[in-house]
Amino acid sequence: MPKLSDLGQLPKRLVVGRPVRSDRAGESLLPKSLALPIFASDPLSSVAYATQEILIVLTLAGTAFLFLAPWLAVVVVLLLATVVLSYRQVVHAYPSGGGDYEVAMKNHGQFAGLTVASALLVDYVLTVAVSVSAGTDNIISAFPTLNEHRVLIAVGLVALLAATNLRGVRESGKTFAVPTYLFVAGIMVMIVTGLVRDLFTDSPVIAESAGWSVLPEAGYDDLGGVALVFFALRAFASGCTALTGVEAIANGVPAFRPPKSKNAATTLALMGGIAATMFAGVTALALFGDVRYAENTCDLVGFPGDCETDPQRTVIAQLAAATFGGDTSVGFFYIQAATALVLILAANTAFNGFPLLGSVLAQDRFLPRQLHTRGDKLVYSNGILLLAGFAALLILAFEADPNRLIQMYIVGVFTSFTIGQWGMVRHWNREIRLSGDAAEKRRMRRSQVINTIGGSLTTVVLVIIVVTKFTRGAYLVILVMPVLFLLMKAINRHYSHVASQLVPDTDARMLPSKVHAIVLVSKVHKPTLRALAFARATRPDVLTALTVNVDPGDTRALQADWERYDVPVPLTVLESPYREITRPVVDYVKGIRRDSPRELVIVFVPQYVVGHWWENVLHNQSALRLRARLQFQPGVMITTVPWQLESSIGRGDEDDRRSGPMPGDLRRGLTDDQVEATPYG
Amino acid sequence: MPKLSDLGQLPKRLVVGRPVRSDRAGESLLPKSLALPIFASDPLSSVAYATQEILIVLTLAGTAFLFLAPWLAVVVVLLLATVVLSYRQVVHAYPSGGGDYEVAMKNHGQFAGLTVASALLVDYVLTVAVSVSAGTDNIISAFPTLNEHRVLIAVGLVALLAATNLRGVRESGKTFAVPTYLFVAGIMVMIVTGLVRDLFTDSPVIAESAGWSVLPEAGYDDLGGVALVFFALRAFASGCTALTGVEAIANGVPAFRPPKSKNAATTLALMGGIAATMFAGVTALALFGDVRYAENTCDLVGFPGDCETDPQRTVIAQLAAATFGGDTSVGFFYIQAATALVLILAANTAFNGFPLLGSVLAQDRFLPRQLHTRGDKLVYSNGILLLAGFAALLILAFEADPNRLIQMYIVGVFTSFTIGQWGMVRHWNREIRLSGDAAEKRRMRRSQVINTIGGSLTTVVLVIIVVTKFTRGAYLVILVMPVLFLLMKAINRHYSHVASQLVPDTDARMLPSKVHAIVLVSKVHKPTLRALAFARATRPDVLTALTVNVDPGDTRALQADWERYDVPVPLTVLESPYREITRPVVDYVKGIRRDSPRELVIVFVPQYVVGHWWENVLHNQSALRLRARLQFQPGVMITTVPWQLESSIGRGDEDDRRSGPMPGDLRRGLTDDQVEATPYG
Repeated sequence: MPKLSDLGQLPKRLVVGRPVRSDRAGESLLPKSLALPIFASDPLSSVAYATQEILIVLTLAGTAFLFLAPWLAVVVVLLLATVVLSYRQVVHAYPSGGGDYEVAMKNHGQFAGLTVASALLVDYVLTVAVSVSAGTDNIISAFPTLNEHRVLIAVGLVALLAATNLRGVRESGKTFAVPTYLFVAGIMVMIVTGLVRDLFTDSPVIAESAGWSVLPEAGYDDLGGVALVFFALRAFASGCTALTGVEAIANGVPAFRPPKSKNAATTLALMGGIAATMFAGVTALALFGDVRYAENTCDLVGFPGDCETDPQRTVIAQLAAATFGGDTSVGFFYIQAATALVLILAANTAFNGFPLLGSVLAQDRFLPRQLHTRGDKLVYSNGILLLAGFAALLILAFEADPNRLIQMYIVGVFTSFTIGQWGMVRHWNREIRLSGDAAEKRRMRRSQVINTIGGSLTTVVLVIIVVTKFTRGAYLVILVMPVLFLLMKAINRHYSHVASQLVPDTDARMLPSKVHAIVLVSKVHKPTLRALAFARATRPDVLTALTVNVDPGDTRALQADWERYDVPVPLTVLESPYREITRPVVDYVKGIRRDSPRELVIVFVPQYVVGHWWENVLHNQSALRLRARLQFQPGVMITTVPWQLESSIGRGDEDDRRSGPMPGDLRRGLTDDQVEATPYG
Repeated sequence: MPKLSDLGQLPKRLVVGRPVRSDRAGESLLPKSLALPIFASDPLSSVAYATQEILIVLTLAGTAFLFLAPWLAVVVVLLLATVVLSYRQVVHAYPSGGGDYEVAMKNHGQFAGLTVASALLVDYVLTVAVSVSAGTDNIISAFPTLNEHRVLIAVGLVALLAATNLRGVRESGKTFAVPTYLFVAGIMVMIVTGLVRDLFTDSPVIAESAGWSVLPEAGYDDLGGVALVFFALRAFASGCTALTGVEAIANGVPAFRPPKSKNAATTLALMGGIAATMFAGVTALALFGDVRYAENTCDLVGFPGDCETDPQRTVIAQLAAATFGGDTSVGFFYIQAATALVLILAANTAFNGFPLLGSVLAQDRFLPRQLHTRGDKLVYSNGILLLAGFAALLILAFEADPNRLIQMYIVGVFTSFTIGQWGMVRHWNREIRLSGDAAEKRRMRRSQVINTIGGSLTTVVLVIIVVTKFTRGAYLVILVMPVLFLLMKAINRHYSHVASQLVPDTDARMLPSKVHAIVLVSKVHKPTLRALAFARATRPDVLTALTVNVDPGDTRALQADWERYDVPVPLTVLESPYREITRPVVDYVKGIRRDSPRELVIVFVPQYVVGHWWENVLHNQSALRLRARLQFQPGVMITTVPWQLESSIGRGDEDDRRSGPMPGDLRRGLTDDQVEATPYG
């Protein structure tokens, strides 16, 4: 039989590296050159799908409206710039790394805070599902024969990420930096090469799909008026996926080297610049190269192979192949590998952020208390498994199709953007009121204007997203978020209610008048004798050895042994006509309490301590049941007197704490005090 | 959210009737007229399929060897008579109702006893599966359109039986007597009517299948020599299903009115006579009426309808239709209803016997201890669910085909027959040696001869069954039995090993030199203050209030409150660099024990008592973990100081005992003393 304890040690055995003391976490603060790739893998990786998402919507109407693409891209870049500017304000105003949750909580209160929290929880799951699916898509673009295993590959990657994080891999800046820089460099080289060829040579980059035409979907062949506006807005909403992950740096300010806020703001600007350049470049290249990408492959006239089963190549893959000399060139495989890797890293950031958010919400009493104990292996593992499980479920439900998953993703992202920005507006209102310095006031006003613009724009985008994506999956998020909201609210109410019951009063401090010890006895054996000896050592006013007559033969044997061993405590036998143990004992205890309510009853329960989980099936069942019942009686304490059976020796020393480094430690870079003082600590 | 306690009360709410006190069970001893149907539903119901099983094997070779049927039937009847005679000896020698398990245990020791126990456990599951499937078969014979729902009906019936037994239905002798007598009367009338028509009139009973011919299966068309002998033995082995259930009365002697053994023996003889008559009569009628029944419906030339999907009518149904005027006659439906009902009653006997056997095996320490507590609702329910679950699994796996299930059934039955009879032979050896009276010795010698014949015959039959049925399903039983055997053996060894560790010595009685009480503290609130007050009431030599510094802010607040509330115990703060709770406390306790090993440490853990299971998710997690770890430390007691939260009020009074009558109470009819004194009690 497998030993439970062995299974419990499995994660431990997989662990590499020594524990990181939280008070030493401050030693590893990040320079900008490492912070950029660590925090930017998520936002930069969206370049891998943002252009494609715009094209997918536009080609619903054939190729007629592709002319909208550059304009939409420009608006997305402007939006990105606004959001980056807005978050630079957040970074300065809330250097604790609390991000939108802290901003919403402090400026709009619980309702807004919990809404952001719900959005973030959903988004962590979707970050994993979307990034892994997009990564899989790029792997398949390099090796199209893998297409039939698409869901399997994606779920396998999620499992791999979960395993790595359960294992507590030691993060190093390089692990993140190398793939991210390789990705950025690769895409940049591709953009420059491509644009140079397009603009200055006679061999422009022509995508493999350039020659295909696209059949318009039913209902999209004659767009005009309101329908056309809606259509354009929908394509724009899809392009907004380019903004996902921008908030990451705002959550990681404490990990930066001082001056933290300034460095974070600089890194944010740098990240925004790179993201904008890459997105604009890829979009330009895709349009010059006449990339055709359709939601429904069978709408592509000219698509080689079976449009029912064969995959389209991602836009990135088509551009890489066209730029670097075909789908067998080194450049092509380089881009695909870097893209897939950076997307998987992006998914990994969710594994870092999710338990951290859980810990913060637990500290604020919105999630179960035990999530707050950061070092707890069990709790931490449960968080990882939960995240991986939900992400895998989404991947299975939506067949690892990034396009379908993204529809849901952006709702949460923009919900938290919007609430955060409006929170900042309120924040500045207050600060301006409090500030006496005119120059400072002016500076604050400017910041407020930026946040107001950011808030207004993201509000409009959120409305656009909800309206245009509602039926395409967003409704699911809009259903799930209130559920999470209400759940957290209920948990918080429960804790508040409990806390109000626990405020000390004199009653709780009243000393009992007398102590009545009861030792439960079934046989005269070592555990019983130990329990009796221990009970006597506490010098109770009354000491009763109690047995229940379930089996007259056993009881007679017990009474005989009692005399034989000359046990110095009288034995009380309770009758049990229905041959049960719990009720007679509970009734007896109730009787004592009824007769003298100020008497304290201590019930000593001898209990076997076993080394294997299955041994518990064979022992202690009545003791467990009894304890469960007795605890409902006021003025009764239940004392377990453990008797360590041989099999238990050497057990009990398993480590409950996560003994490896914590994933995400690096991007926190906090000293112990900071961990405690800040919500996102 | 659902409340766990509500779910727990569900079985209770379904219960009808008042509890039966076990010391009153003696009031309802059974007269023979009630004992017969109560114990005979299982053995008599085998008449419903025994004849059919013989025909199924014989028609594998077409109709050429049907001439063997009457001879095989005669041998089966003789075997039945021998076994009945043998069990009459058991009834006299072991009036305690221990049956073959007791006989084997007392005369051959543990190996034989556990083999019988394994066989019986398997047989209880198969009794349910076979009887319910055969019952379903007879329902379908009356309403052939139900055939496509065969498995569903059978599983539904198992679920119904489980629900009824979970509900704790009050048994009355009539519930069993009426259907059994109706069945016996119906079959008898059918046999007499049929035989009179066959032998004395011009309108013999001709089965609907009489005109069909049967195609021999491949390999069976030219039987001779050893193959023919094997073939005949296989058909005989199938016919031996007529004997299943014969042992029931030997397990129920204590339920008879005095003189118990004599009455039981008489009832056994009566049952044997009726069973033999019915089996012989049905077989005769089937042969006179030229019933054709084949394993593979498509071997039946002339079968109307689709042989792939349409069902054959059972032999009983064909005879009833032919005897009473067709398949729309009242007589036909009467026989089908009575047959199905008696088969379902037979399945129900397993639901009575299974928990009883579990209790006996638990008392002998071969199964977990808690199974012994007869009145335990939870344990009892688990037994019923386990039995129903495995039976349903078999039904699903073998598509509710009684023919396929029976191949497995008889292995266990004859294993326990054989071991029991040889045990009796040894029993008489001993008794004869001990007896001084020559007349008594003579009487014992006669009994021994009967058991020797019984033992020899059942041994031969067992060998025949194993050899002829091995590949047809018996191998499964032969695989499962040793697993059960080893499991029970391992459980027993574990209990013995534990018991040997627990024999009292002086060490266990040694009083600790000093008591060091530790109260775990996280906040100054009512539960903490109560725990401190209670701990002080036990007047320990040392009293420490202990907290773990997981969160410096919280710890500072605690220290401030400690002064504010003027708590009269010094507060010790343990540092926890890794922000965990369990390890620092365990290390602290270990330190105390290391410094003074004779000091007793009592750890007081304040604990919230909540009313809903989900509240436990929100509380007490660290307390639970801590308790789990501390119990491995010798010389440490863990005292739970419960604080009853409002939601817990009124909880804790749920009844753990099964508050309805116990299924099978009736067929036990034991006084409390007898329950304890006998293994099958």
